[in-house]
Amino acid sequence: MTHSRFDVLGIGNAIVDVIARTEDDFLVREGLAKGSMRLIDAAEAERLYDHMGPAKEISGGSAGNTIAALAGLGARAAYFGKVAEDHLGTIFRHDIRSVGVHFETAPLHIGAADWAPTARSMILVTPDGERTMNTFLGACTHLTPDDIEADVVADAAVVYLEGYLWDPPAAKEAFRRASAIAHAHGRRVALTLSDSFCVDRWRPEFLELMRSGVVDLVFANQAEVKALYETADLDSGIAALRGDVRLAAVTLSDQGSLVVTAEKVTAVPAAPVETLVDTTGAGDLYASGFLYGLTHDFDYAACAELGGLLAAEIIGHVGARSQRDLVDLARQAGFPL
Amino acid sequence: MTHSRFDVLGIGNAIVDVIARTEDDFLVREGLAKGSMRLIDAAEAERLYDHMGPAKEISGGSAGNTIAALAGLGARAAYFGKVAEDHLGTIFRHDIRSVGVHFETAPLHIGAADWAPTARSMILVTPDGERTMNTFLGACTHLTPDDIEADVVADAAVVYLEGYLWDPPAAKEAFRRASAIAHAHGRRVALTLSDSFCVDRWRPEFLELMRSGVVDLVFANQAEVKALYETADLDSGIAALRGDVRLAAVTLSDQGSLVVTAEKVTAVPAAPVETLVDTTGAGDLYASGFLYGLTHDFDYAACAELGGLLAAEIIGHVGARSQRDLVDLARQAGFPL
Repeated sequence: MTHSRFDVLGIGNAIVDVIARTEDDFLVREGLAKGSMRLIDAAEAERLYDHMGPAKEISGGSAGNTIAALAGLGARAAYFGKVAEDHLGTIFRHDIRSVGVHFETAPLHIGAADWAPTARSMILVTPDGERTMNTFLGACTHLTPDDIEADVVADAAVVYLEGYLWDPPAAKEAFRRASAIAHAHGRRVALTLSDSFCVDRWRPEFLELMRSGVVDLVFANQAEVKALYETADLDSGIAALRGDVRLAAVTLSDQGSLVVTAEKVTAVPAAPVETLVDTTGAGDLYASGFLYGLTHDFDYAACAELGGLLAAEIIGHVGARSQRDLVDLARQAGFPL
Repeated sequence: MTHSRFDVLGIGNAIVDVIARTEDDFLVREGLAKGSMRLIDAAEAERLYDHMGPAKEISGGSAGNTIAALAGLGARAAYFGKVAEDHLGTIFRHDIRSVGVHFETAPLHIGAADWAPTARSMILVTPDGERTMNTFLGACTHLTPDDIEADVVADAAVVYLEGYLWDPPAAKEAFRRASAIAHAHGRRVALTLSDSFCVDRWRPEFLELMRSGVVDLVFANQAEVKALYETADLDSGIAALRGDVRLAAVTLSDQGSLVVTAEKVTAVPAAPVETLVDTTGAGDLYASGFLYGLTHDFDYAACAELGGLLAAEIIGHVGARSQRDLVDLARQAGFPL
């Protein structure tokens, strides 16, 4: 791979998380499927916000979390995502730029005919640390191919895309455009499957992206692999995955993760977790560690280990953006950062 | 005391906290006095926000924190404070109402000639857990006597006022009006001195409030007592306090607190602290516990113990609003809630 200005460029839904602790009863009363991400409209967003308890606002978005932590590790990182010119948009921009990420996507202007506010995800965290997400996409649905900064894509070793981007229609085209530019410059393209419900919505398209080589590397958890191949048997899913994509990293919660290639499957144990507080961001931070390793010549097992270390850190507190010194954390665990 | 609809009514600056972890170096570079609260204007708020790291947004405000935790303990609580019609205002209103607090202060309307946005306090938390606050008061400065709901004041066993309210000019008159109504209905009026710098700004007025009986109960930490009486000797300060106010609760960080009356001074040890993460809200939550006890017929030592228990809880995580079940916490410690 040739020299690049950025290690990783992330493209995703730019979202501010609104995080509240809740009891399981509340999920039942509201008819919410625990552990899932569902998309909601403005009216439902308002209704649910009225019902839920006191919250914290923390910048989020799956790829945004991944990219912020990559910057925290010292990687050179960039991000494309659509916020609006409003207070949540200001928060999102501040938080991602303040860790050194290149973020120049034009915000949706006030007065635009199709104005929508910055996206928010109301995340309900139950006592077991599981999170149930209710996302109002708002301005995210306005990310279009025009937002793809071609020079940045061309100059990023890896372009990382979230499966959630398949929900807002115009973003798909942005994603395909980015992948074409990246491949024209000899870069790699990664995709996270995001959520098993997201896989259910977009199964044929995700498989096509993998099989046609639009995507070189896939991140998924076991539920997403099973959903992708409509199987209850993880091993069958893994076997299928080996034929469909060059490289995959499959997370298995407290069982660690698997690095999957056509040649072999490598199991890497999980990092120890002190307290499980909030699983939000575990997959996102795993991808940060893995991609840091991948762009810094770690072998695959070390990529997966660093991913596991970051995932273990993020689930020890509320929110998916760490304020810890991630370089220190990685160095203390023996990684050559 | 006659029956009342509310146990405690809090009046304060309605603020959303913007909390970021930082190193001591950053405070030095920015010329900030560690541990203090300073007032800043809109331009400085923008400048500092540009410089500081990624943050979490959590509803705050000293009396707001106290009242939210009182509601969390099951007390009947009300709050007066001024937010604007903007996103931070929506967050503040949601968070305090969602725990059951009566909060009906009219927000500052968009288009008002003297429009100002909802107040925010940029709180920089150093590795030792100490917080340095930079507060842009914005809409808070518009709290006036017209915002005092006389029926609520008349029907609250205790009216609790923050010393910070002495900074926005019109709020002083609101405070005096509330005190007069409360006393006319046989209620008690409490004041927290808030911050030693705040005491420096308003020393003669705070002393006058105490000596003239506008205030019956004072909350202070040791730095504030020393600032109030311009002495380096806490004992001299406590002696002076005994002559100036009927009841005072003086917090001493990890040394617990003192309950001070004309008759005697009672020392109460601190509750054990597992990890010191962020001291923001320690004083506010102490007041919650103390006031819960006071309005539920606890003796003074038990009031101080419950205050200490809540203070110990809040400094174990980031932010001054707990999402723990405070009733459970208090019951496990043996309090009759």
